[in-house]
Amino acid sequence: MTDTVTVPRGLAGVVVTDTTIGHVRGLEGFYHYRQYSAIDLAGRRTLEDVWALLIDGSLPSDPAALPAEVAPLRHLPDAVAAALPAIAAAASAVDPMGGLRAALAVAGLAAGARPLYDTSAAERRVQAMRLCAMTPTLLAALYRLRLGLEPVAPRDDLPHAANYLYVITGREPSDVHARAIEQYLIATVDHGFNASTFTARVIASTGADLYACIGGALGALSGPLHGGAPSRALDTLDAIGSVDRADDWLRARILSGERIMGFGHPIYRTEDPRSRLLRGIARQLGGDLVDFAVSVEARVLALLAELKPGRELHTNVEYYAGVVMELCGLPREMFTPTFAVSRVIGWCANVLEQAEDSKIIRPDSRYVGEVPPQPVP
Amino acid sequence: MTDTVTVPRGLAGVVVTDTTIGHVRGLEGFYHYRQYSAIDLAGRRTLEDVWALLIDGSLPSDPAALPAEVAPLRHLPDAVAAALPAIAAAASAVDPMGGLRAALAVAGLAAGARPLYDTSAAERRVQAMRLCAMTPTLLAALYRLRLGLEPVAPRDDLPHAANYLYVITGREPSDVHARAIEQYLIATVDHGFNASTFTARVIASTGADLYACIGGALGALSGPLHGGAPSRALDTLDAIGSVDRADDWLRARILSGERIMGFGHPIYRTEDPRSRLLRGIARQLGGDLVDFAVSVEARVLALLAELKPGRELHTNVEYYAGVVMELCGLPREMFTPTFAVSRVIGWCANVLEQAEDSKIIRPDSRYVGEVPPQPVP
Repeated sequence: MTDTVTVPRGLAGVVVTDTTIGHVRGLEGFYHYRQYSAIDLAGRRTLEDVWALLIDGSLPSDPAALPAEVAPLRHLPDAVAAALPAIAAAASAVDPMGGLRAALAVAGLAAGARPLYDTSAAERRVQAMRLCAMTPTLLAALYRLRLGLEPVAPRDDLPHAANYLYVITGREPSDVHARAIEQYLIATVDHGFNASTFTARVIASTGADLYACIGGALGALSGPLHGGAPSRALDTLDAIGSVDRADDWLRARILSGERIMGFGHPIYRTEDPRSRLLRGIARQLGGDLVDFAVSVEARVLALLAELKPGRELHTNVEYYAGVVMELCGLPREMFTPTFAVSRVIGWCANVLEQAEDSKIIRPDSRYVGEVPPQPVP
Repeated sequence: MTDTVTVPRGLAGVVVTDTTIGHVRGLEGFYHYRQYSAIDLAGRRTLEDVWALLIDGSLPSDPAALPAEVAPLRHLPDAVAAALPAIAAAASAVDPMGGLRAALAVAGLAAGARPLYDTSAAERRVQAMRLCAMTPTLLAALYRLRLGLEPVAPRDDLPHAANYLYVITGREPSDVHARAIEQYLIATVDHGFNASTFTARVIASTGADLYACIGGALGALSGPLHGGAPSRALDTLDAIGSVDRADDWLRARILSGERIMGFGHPIYRTEDPRSRLLRGIARQLGGDLVDFAVSVEARVLALLAELKPGRELHTNVEYYAGVVMELCGLPREMFTPTFAVSRVIGWCANVLEQAEDSKIIRPDSRYVGEVPPQPVP
């Protein structure tokens, strides 16, 4: 037994592992995938290029290779498709993240996913590509089944982002919407050692199978303090209703200590660079919602500066992500699941990296209850 | 952003949180639930008593209350039962832990499980009791469906451990077998900040729902380096075959650096107290397998002392757990899932405790790849 080590709450700043996947520099408002700025990648590359960068370690020499590899993997095995109606029917409330967890667990069963501990790097990569390719199909099928619609078969000729919008809506998206969502997906593929990525790596450190790792990460991403908030940010805009009501509404919440969804980040002390990217995309898409969101953002920042000086709260990724997804026609219940469409790629990259490390992640706690041993009555 | 903190690999000894649930003292070979020795509890109490101790904080004043509360919760909602055949049919390999993850995700959908972030302590407790009560039913139903057998309805008049054996086998177990499994279950309800418990708490720290937390923990428990090894320990005994072959078989593996399943623990530097308890239970059950396991254990310890001096490797919980479960008639594929039957109670206690803490668990990593930002080609 190692001596105990006391560290900051929530393990803030505690270095768990070395990585070559990427990192977040919170003070600079900068994050990267491998050696490239993630924001630059979102501006200049396809999601498939970034997918190759994350999983295989470098931008592809043949940009057609990964799209050709993953398109057939989007189609569901029969046994998985057969289980989806029962999963959709079981839900007593709208819960697409819970549905995806169930569906991916079934997909893992169908794939006969073996423990990382027993697999080669090549086998793990195949598992990862299939899981990432299949995720939009599962989400869209469950979404449509819940509404009483037939699932739509994936289109092998569409890029991953456009295909995602297609299988959700049943309509081929405009180039503008497909690219807006693709840029969102690129910008959210990975983001340091956040709670879901860390969860995936803890599970991977036990030698469990890839689907077990991603299932845990999905659970973490569904939490309102992690990925579960983009629709809540948009709900806030709805609740405010109009610019002239913003100050009263916000002031009351800030003074009562309530969290304003879409603001604040555990790592960034500057504006979230993803927020800047998504604000720009939103502005290009344009419309009343964008103008309203920009106005409310300004009021929130002004009121936070007045009422919570020194707190350094800025818009985070979720605020404009909600606006962009709404403008691209994604239903609000699919906002967090859309986050999962990209983040599964980052999680898989992290799991593949963790699988090379044989050390289980097992921290400690400090017992502060009544002193043992008391005799058992 | 906090300054980075460098800590031991795998977070060994790193204190993540305070707890009143229990702790492991690795140097003393002692662990406890609340203020009581876990081994003493296994000797003197029922699983239901210990369940109340973990979830409600103290041994029950009325020992009949919890059994009466949980018996009806063992029965599956229709929508969950309806999904199980498709889950069982999807599996291309024997994977009861993957099946349980899928089934519990469906149960979470059916329960309309809400984020911890949005729930009261009372609502969270109700969710936890239902999840723990339902776990044996789900495991047994999937096991029987896979074999082409009808699921068996839970018996409200049986204690939890006896009912578990009943729903698996379809036969009421002997008192001796029911008590042996009950003692195993009590001894494995909780065990400090192991990887699955930690996973549950990381997910809980995002405010996700209870089923998301337990799904992640199940994934971690399925890993061969965590809970996925009791059947492997028994497989080792099978592979050795007879006492006279033990030395040759073991020596070759130890010299080649292979792990011997059932030996070694990240925290204990003494014998695992659970191993001592389970060896005693195995000896009471008696038979050739027990004699053989005791002989092989002695040879492993002698050879490890000779070939890896100073390594302090001892029998861990899994070695005799496999023997006890085999003697009580549990099929080998259900060994790790049986571990889950008890551990869900410990996980739920940990999730309920974590839900009182508003700080997300989000550590950091050290980027060691090519220096960014390079221009995106």
